[in-house]
Amino acid sequence: MSVLNLETLLRPRTVALFGADRAPRSIGRVLAENLFKGGFDGPVMPVHAKEPAVQGVLAYRSVADLPITADLAVIALPLPEIPPLLAELGARGTRAAVIVSHDSIAAETAEVAALEQAMLTAARPHGLRVVGPACLGLMVPSQGLNASYAHICATDGDLAFISQSGSLMTLMLDWAGARGVGFSVVAALGDMIDVDLGDMLDYLAFDVGTRAVLLCVDHIGDPRTFLSAARAAARLKQVIVFDAGGIKDQALAHARFGGAGAVSTPDDFRPSRSEVYDAAFRRAGLLPVPSLADLVAAAGALGTGIRLGGDRLAVIANGRGIAEVAGEVVLEEGGRLAQLSDETLAALDQVLPATWERRNPVNLFADATAARWQGAVGPVLADPGVDAVVAINTPTAVGDTLEAARAVAEQHVGKRTPSQPSGWRKARSTRPGVCSPSIGSRCMTGPAKRLKP
Amino acid sequence: MSVLNLETLLRPRTVALFGADRAPRSIGRVLAENLFKGGFDGPVMPVHAKEPAVQGVLAYRSVADLPITADLAVIALPLPEIPPLLAELGARGTRAAVIVSHDSIAAETAEVAALEQAMLTAARPHGLRVVGPACLGLMVPSQGLNASYAHICATDGDLAFISQSGSLMTLMLDWAGARGVGFSVVAALGDMIDVDLGDMLDYLAFDVGTRAVLLCVDHIGDPRTFLSAARAAARLKQVIVFDAGGIKDQALAHARFGGAGAVSTPDDFRPSRSEVYDAAFRRAGLLPVPSLADLVAAAGALGTGIRLGGDRLAVIANGRGIAEVAGEVVLEEGGRLAQLSDETLAALDQVLPATWERRNPVNLFADATAARWQGAVGPVLADPGVDAVVAINTPTAVGDTLEAARAVAEQHVGKRTPSQPSGWRKARSTRPGVCSPSIGSRCMTGPAKRLKP
Repeated sequence: MSVLNLETLLRPRTVALFGADRAPRSIGRVLAENLFKGGFDGPVMPVHAKEPAVQGVLAYRSVADLPITADLAVIALPLPEIPPLLAELGARGTRAAVIVSHDSIAAETAEVAALEQAMLTAARPHGLRVVGPACLGLMVPSQGLNASYAHICATDGDLAFISQSGSLMTLMLDWAGARGVGFSVVAALGDMIDVDLGDMLDYLAFDVGTRAVLLCVDHIGDPRTFLSAARAAARLKQVIVFDAGGIKDQALAHARFGGAGAVSTPDDFRPSRSEVYDAAFRRAGLLPVPSLADLVAAAGALGTGIRLGGDRLAVIANGRGIAEVAGEVVLEEGGRLAQLSDETLAALDQVLPATWERRNPVNLFADATAARWQGAVGPVLADPGVDAVVAINTPTAVGDTLEAARAVAEQHVGKRTPSQPSGWRKARSTRPGVCSPSIGSRCMTGPAKRLKP
Repeated sequence: MSVLNLETLLRPRTVALFGADRAPRSIGRVLAENLFKGGFDGPVMPVHAKEPAVQGVLAYRSVADLPITADLAVIALPLPEIPPLLAELGARGTRAAVIVSHDSIAAETAEVAALEQAMLTAARPHGLRVVGPACLGLMVPSQGLNASYAHICATDGDLAFISQSGSLMTLMLDWAGARGVGFSVVAALGDMIDVDLGDMLDYLAFDVGTRAVLLCVDHIGDPRTFLSAARAAARLKQVIVFDAGGIKDQALAHARFGGAGAVSTPDDFRPSRSEVYDAAFRRAGLLPVPSLADLVAAAGALGTGIRLGGDRLAVIANGRGIAEVAGEVVLEEGGRLAQLSDETLAALDQVLPATWERRNPVNLFADATAARWQGAVGPVLADPGVDAVVAINTPTAVGDTLEAARAVAEQHVGKRTPSQPSGWRKARSTRPGVCSPSIGSRCMTGPAKRLKP
């Protein structure tokens, strides 16, 4: 539709809550807890037909009873109650609603469709924007706004994560929470009867608090407006997109399901839905990633706040095997391995055994001590032909992972990115000690696919 | 070469140790600690020119002084000392040696090559088999044999892990140690002047303690004997192979390094080294995996001990987005999604909201309770058209991950595999409570690539 009233949606001064519940683990209860505990500055006013208070906060009987107009309504009522509520809210002056109410509450698909249409009919005349229904909700950490029933709250940061799917949103939150990656906005838009991915992109393109946008796309309702929004946003921000709807590629699915003869029809030579989406994303300037893991990796890389000056990577590792595998991944993924200068090679000759291969990836050998790490990382970081260093320490009984990590961190001069992925168990203990905003760290299940900064 | 004396290598009754060291974190010290503390039943006899004892164990001055002949010699001496030592050991009756001595101890590449040739010349007349040099060593947990300087010891199990690279071996050990995956043999073969991947495959094919073999290949010295061994082994055991040497694909590397005109030569249309390796692996009946992460995943899947009766997978998840993504990954990776029977669909109708899509992947919706999990997993597991169930629980504030995992575990009837990948932080706490040998569990950075059992 447009960015009309999205500012009110994401920066409301007052919030009304509908559908709070007492039952433990109910959506209505978690939603109320999240709203009350999110740290929101303005009033969160519960509206409840029966309860005098919700979690200790005075409840009002109806929209009419609200002492002040709510900018934003957050709604967890059964679907049939929502259209008249939206009409009343719109008339009172509310300009945005987040409807988490799940369609599983309604009986039939046809009934849900009719109710959704009724919601739109009620909201549109007032310019009341609707997020959902059947959405997990949204968070704006800088506003203390948590209008969702997610299990954890995002911390403040400058990444936006916009998804249609709530389950992918909670996965991202769960991951990011453990890694200290913060967000400007986190939203799962659900059925997208009104506010859609394009609208959010249009808004976020000009949001000063958002540096990059992570998108999870299931389907695109209106390709024209989406692509127009995507093009505009991609000019101003980095936009990473994961296509979560590939299973809708019916040709593929049908063939794989074993549908007889499905493979031999001319349709099979048409580009698949995924291919069309991928081409459109690229054309619009978005960066498509092939898997959820890649989207998470992108969040991790963007979350460091580092912008690299180039893509010439040096790989330094305490083992030939892991160094080679890492170097191969860099090449396979379209990255570049930096060529070390003669000066750097000469400096490395001083600290490495005579049999070292005098090239990038640099193998420090399994008996690498912290001193050798230090002596090697320094010259490589100083090489003007190197934009970033990927340092990989595999656990050994001979070297000390923490000392190796410290040696790398000490050599780091601020302008480049030594990333410090290590072995599984040891890495965890080293991270807090050496990581800084300009030093990424990964504890990997494998170096493959995740090495690019 | 052959399996000659590999039984002695992997099941020695007596071990001699050369090159023990006092210096903390030295290879010689760690090696000695690992040998003494591994739980080996027979004597481990240190041989040392100066020390009267090594870590409290009486040391002998020379091979001649050893009170009994050692079946296996484990050597961490400088390379130049090794050829005469091997000749002496061979003459005395020792039939296998693991040489961890690193080539970084020697001065020049040419010197290393000459010394390695001298080692072979000394060993061959006696049929003394040599592992290494420049290897991390090997472990046979069932024998309490840890002839390596790895930082942790493998636990006993029925997977064999054979690598050329020591760093990839320690990565695998670090991962497996934390996950309870056990091994029959773990070996990093290093420079492979004698015992090579093919020899190990030949031996392991008939090793009753080994159910499956994980191979990390850097390069194959003798393709003919390797492929012959691979074919034979693959007939008897599952053999998973990861090609860790792809960077040697010089055409690709050269083109990517920016070599002028490199892309336009006719050579570029020849199959690359990686393609040749991949084709050869498949032809021999091995299963190549594209990344180290996949190899680790294979170890995890094989480590459960489950053999599936088929590849018809059902996906059950508490969210449409994650269910669809998982289903897509199954299809993309060449797997099959089971078609649910009418009986199963009818049973699911009883527990799921009316709007559910009546197909696999099965979405339990974000408000799934443990009861809904239980009600859904039971019928799907009982469906004769379903070979395995992948159950994905994304964290929510409404459902309880542990309860959901327990509900799945309780429904599990032993013949199939509910795998239980969950959100990052919550998953960790649920694992110990619900995992059994027939229930895999993953804490994923993304469902992609890792869902197949």
